[in-house]
Amino acid sequence: MSAARRMFASDNASGAHPAVLDALRAANEGHAYAYGDDEWTRAAEAVIRRHLGDAARAFFVFNGTGANATALAAVMRPYEAVICPATAHINVDECGAPERFTGGKLLPVDTPDGKLTPELVERAIFGVGVEHHSQARVVSISQSTEYGTVYRPDEIAALAATAHDHGMLLHVDGARISNAAASLDCSLSQMLTDTGVDVVSLGGTKNGMLFGEAVVFLRESIGDDFRFVRKQGAQLASKMRYIGAQFVALFGSGLWLENARHANEMARLLADGMRGVPGVRITQPVEANEVFATLPREAIEPLQREFGFYVWDERTAEVRWVTSWDTTPEDVAAFVEGAKRIVADI
Amino acid sequence: MSAARRMFASDNASGAHPAVLDALRAANEGHAYAYGDDEWTRAAEAVIRRHLGDAARAFFVFNGTGANATALAAVMRPYEAVICPATAHINVDECGAPERFTGGKLLPVDTPDGKLTPELVERAIFGVGVEHHSQARVVSISQSTEYGTVYRPDEIAALAATAHDHGMLLHVDGARISNAAASLDCSLSQMLTDTGVDVVSLGGTKNGMLFGEAVVFLRESIGDDFRFVRKQGAQLASKMRYIGAQFVALFGSGLWLENARHANEMARLLADGMRGVPGVRITQPVEANEVFATLPREAIEPLQREFGFYVWDERTAEVRWVTSWDTTPEDVAAFVEGAKRIVADI
Amino acid sequence: MSAARRMFASDNASGAHPAVLDALRAANEGHAYAYGDDEWTRAAEAVIRRHLGDAARAFFVFNGTGANATALAAVMRPYEAVICPATAHINVDECGAPERFTGGKLLPVDTPDGKLTPELVERAIFGVGVEHHSQARVVSISQSTEYGTVYRPDEIAALAATAHDHGMLLHVDGARISNAAASLDCSLSQMLTDTGVDVVSLGGTKNGMLFGEAVVFLRESIGDDFRFVRKQGAQLASKMRYIGAQFVALFGSGLWLENARHANEMARLLADGMRGVPGVRITQPVEANEVFATLPREAIEPLQREFGFYVWDERTAEVRWVTSWDTTPEDVAAFVEGAKRIVADI
Amino acid sequence: MSAARRMFASDNASGAHPAVLDALRAANEGHAYAYGDDEWTRAAEAVIRRHLGDAARAFFVFNGTGANATALAAVMRPYEAVICPATAHINVDECGAPERFTGGKLLPVDTPDGKLTPELVERAIFGVGVEHHSQARVVSISQSTEYGTVYRPDEIAALAATAHDHGMLLHVDGARISNAAASLDCSLSQMLTDTGVDVVSLGGTKNGMLFGEAVVFLRESIGDDFRFVRKQGAQLASKMRYIGAQFVALFGSGLWLENARHANEMARLLADGMRGVPGVRITQPVEANEVFATLPREAIEPLQREFGFYVWDERTAEVRWVTSWDTTPEDVAAFVEGAKRIVADI
Repeated sequence: MSAARRMFASDNASGAHPAVLDALRAANEGHAYAYGDDEWTRAAEAVIRRHLGDAARAFFVFNGTGANATALAAVMRPYEAVICPATAHINVDECGAPERFTGGKLLPVDTPDGKLTPELVERAIFGVGVEHHSQARVVSISQSTEYGTVYRPDEIAALAATAHDHGMLLHVDGARISNAAASLDCSLSQMLTDTGVDVVSLGGTKNGMLFGEAVVFLRESIGDDFRFVRKQGAQLASKMRYIGAQFVALFGSGLWLENARHANEMARLLADGMRGVPGVRITQPVEANEVFATLPREAIEPLQREFGFYVWDERTAEVRWVTSWDTTPEDVAAFVEGAKRIVADI
Repeated sequence: MSAARRMFASDNASGAHPAVLDALRAANEGHAYAYGDDEWTRAAEAVIRRHLGDAARAFFVFNGTGANATALAAVMRPYEAVICPATAHINVDECGAPERFTGGKLLPVDTPDGKLTPELVERAIFGVGVEHHSQARVVSISQSTEYGTVYRPDEIAALAATAHDHGMLLHVDGARISNAAASLDCSLSQMLTDTGVDVVSLGGTKNGMLFGEAVVFLRESIGDDFRFVRKQGAQLASKMRYIGAQFVALFGSGLWLENARHANEMARLLADGMRGVPGVRITQPVEANEVFATLPREAIEPLQREFGFYVWDERTAEVRWVTSWDTTPEDVAAFVEGAKRIVADI
Repeated sequence: MSAARRMFASDNASGAHPAVLDALRAANEGHAYAYGDDEWTRAAEAVIRRHLGDAARAFFVFNGTGANATALAAVMRPYEAVICPATAHINVDECGAPERFTGGKLLPVDTPDGKLTPELVERAIFGVGVEHHSQARVVSISQSTEYGTVYRPDEIAALAATAHDHGMLLHVDGARISNAAASLDCSLSQMLTDTGVDVVSLGGTKNGMLFGEAVVFLRESIGDDFRFVRKQGAQLASKMRYIGAQFVALFGSGLWLENARHANEMARLLADGMRGVPGVRITQPVEANEVFATLPREAIEPLQREFGFYVWDERTAEVRWVTSWDTTPEDVAAFVEGAKRIVADI
Repeated sequence: MSAARRMFASDNASGAHPAVLDALRAANEGHAYAYGDDEWTRAAEAVIRRHLGDAARAFFVFNGTGANATALAAVMRPYEAVICPATAHINVDECGAPERFTGGKLLPVDTPDGKLTPELVERAIFGVGVEHHSQARVVSISQSTEYGTVYRPDEIAALAATAHDHGMLLHVDGARISNAAASLDCSLSQMLTDTGVDVVSLGGTKNGMLFGEAVVFLRESIGDDFRFVRKQGAQLASKMRYIGAQFVALFGSGLWLENARHANEMARLLADGMRGVPGVRITQPVEANEVFATLPREAIEPLQREFGFYVWDERTAEVRWVTSWDTTPEDVAAFVEGAKRIVADI
């Protein structure tokens, strides 16, 4: 498969948006103090305050696992625990980094669609105040979820209220936060600040950056020592300006939303097209830039070989297709045609 | 101070070399599988094998602290220890990341010049086989050192032999490995492979990259599970091609050496110039791209304000000046003139 | 409630067997080298070899959580995982000690009766060799289980075979191993050594000791560095002879089995009695020294106040009654009578 | 060497005082709720409040390493550090448990006599507020020290003031706290509470108990979550009453002081006697129950074989002799005579 072909494997298979690369070049002038004491980092912090409110304190890190693991480590003690969906990236796809960075425990909860509810959260809390049991301290949700579904702001607000009622915090893994905002047609502030979220892993890489994420604390009393947690977690970039500049390029303009809208639109197009392929069943609501489907088992490998994507669940022959800021309608059409051809041939 | 002025604060205050930026742009074509399953990463691995031998296995990570912490974690158990100079970056400048990632202990050793010797190593080993004491497992040296001094290959070979005699490994923190090679006028292989080094943190950022380092295992039996250590340590880049492409641009040509030689030359120029400034004393041999000096205490702050650098030791009024791949003779001359002026004024 | 009354709260509410106390006094003569270099420790190690075979290497620790956490830490790397029942003590009752000591992850599996099966284990294994996922390394079972059920030797052998087929190890949390042996009427060797178990947390405290457990490695290639893991885990007793002497008193004679048989017999008696109480339903097979039951919700608190026991599940009004080596038929009869009276009164 | 012979190896080579064993037997009546919810634990907590003031909150743990590691873990974050003498038990003799339990760093300081001073502490503090450096959070001293020397209350008060001035806490490793009190002829309160100590590892094992230490918080705002730290650290005894009963036996009467005074007196007797042996030099002030000395190198091994003790420093032929609550004047006389004989024979 040519590297120039746009795959459906993941949005991190896509490259960087040209405007982001231009920003890197523009930032590459002369010297700047390292570790974030530079104008690009300060500009990026201001951009995030414009999105999330004056209380928002953003800290830039390298990648999504780093953002989640350090964000959780900053607000937990090792005897505490995180309630999350069983499908959560922090539970399944980070090789135990959250446990390792926090010293604590995850309490995974089964869900049909990757989304927690207040009821599910309350059922997962137990042994409060009893020293034999890890104490639930954080509720962590992904927005959009690992199933490509999206929480409405009122759903997030309800989860925040539940968390706060129990003296807990709400963390949002926002590796695909832009896709969720595009899907809901709401601002980041409406989704995160107004709903009472405490801390966010704000994603850039999957939406057109080369690398870089932000940990953003939205509440006063937490994260004051995050600089130390980040440094000890090896997530402090020396030439920080190159993360700051990318964030400004993406979130300082409408690019973040434009990229996300486009990716979402391509996912809808893909789902619509694939619904017409015999034997294909779309298994989750297509609310962001991911499509989950089952298809005839023998069709999977030939289709993968030609177009590039991952099997989500070997047992059920469920696959995942992800669209990106650079996916074209032609890519989608070729994929749908390819699927029809391959399914017809088996 | 203008961001366009080249400071003497650190080599990570410099930007990226234009050829490195060009490589990023060239790598930004189409899609590539994430997490290193791409052609740029494979090319970079091959480049490093050309430098360090066919047995060299390179793994790319984000930054120097991440390289050191995961490299050590990969070869240690938590009840083991690392013998290092008291001045080592891992001991002083990583906020306890090595202890945190390994679960183990550092055994810092006082040195006059930042360099360990076999005698110092042997004196630091104690309680072998006795469960009350952390067991020395790794000797870690920096090349060039935090004092800008450089180990000769025979000195490294002697340390490797000492380490191996005691069933230990030799780790090299090579954040400035290129400057050492330029200083010694030897190949990376002569310095690292032929001397018996076991694992290297191979630096890119300080020598003209935007970000990115490599952990390179040079011995067969170690590092087999490093991919897991790297992932759990949050040091696995999703869009890995952007690290690979930078490494190819730097180490796949003579650029790494050219950059390092230039930086070293500027340091020599600077030291020579400053030796002529009244009240200035150069305190360490200038063997790479760092100059350590004492100067009249009242001159420090005005000079810092104008040119940008750090105080190394408040007690002794010792300062550190670092040159970069992009430092110019004019920068150096301006600094020396400025120093003369400021010293004359106090 | 008088402290002299024997409760049904837990077998660790019971005291020590008089023979164990006598052994302490006998061991209290003169001086002995600390940390296990004494004759009582050596005798206890030999006693365990007699039970578990010449390859068995026993290391004494303070408590059950310490035994489990250090045993797992000794055989795992932090990026690895433990498959265990969701009800496992290591998952529910150790405040995250296993995650903290190992740096790794637990993969809890829902079971009806606290028992894993090869099928459940195989379903829990995923992402083998893929760095994004914690790698399953250990299967951990409790014998007898937290539900008072018992694995037959052939069931353990099947789990060991499954584990080994996948390059994993089988760990047994044997806090109540004696009760299981008594239940099965088999030797410890038949249950643990012959079935292929790799490492056992061998319990003493719940069966008549004051404190003390053993971590026993049954396979050659593992646990060689356990002395260091134990020391760093703060589980190395200085006056070790007092653990050794207790183990000799319990396992060097038939006392371990006698105590366990008696406790099991009392549990059967209790279950039989309670089956006759209106509204009471025994919810799990009574195979060792624990009885699980549901009863009228209003009866729970008065009964607890009078006799001392714990609610297992608030939602379902399921309670747990545990019998001990010192529980008497009169204790059981009083409890059954009390339950009848209280239920009649509500 | 007969186990009945009293050695000079360590005070943990001694057995338990008969009154302590009697207390165990007395506590062995009937059932008691586990994990400290029992009358013996409550009585022991009250005893410690009598010694250290009403604000003193005592938590019982198994051993000294467990006490130190959990006490530090309770008051530190992983990016923080502990300033301690290089000779400290936490630095040398706990196999990295403090680093492992806290995730943090030790900053060892060279001292002539095992004692920190305010000057030494202040010199060890650096990089305050700068994220690259582990932040000094705790000053930890041993009382009596690993060299058998003793801090006067005013020295402790000065260290506490220094620590507090820098926003730090003072921890005392009191494995031999009773020997220090006996040496100073002051109360525990005068030594610890009145001087401003924040948290103490209060030793029992070395002064006549079988096992058991206490972590005692003396200041309001710290240690509130210690129960969880202790549990996750595997230091929570299920049959806690057996620790409580021992503490009551020792500290609820004058026994703790009587034992310690006797051990100290034996050390003085030993030092006096050994000063008369040719070639023997006492190297440290003998202020508690330890004697450090150099003696002719060839005499060491024969003397060790006959009497049992440890070499402290192979390089300097310095040895350590420790006396216990049960050391007799006859033991001391035999040792001195033996030394004279052996030295004469070489």
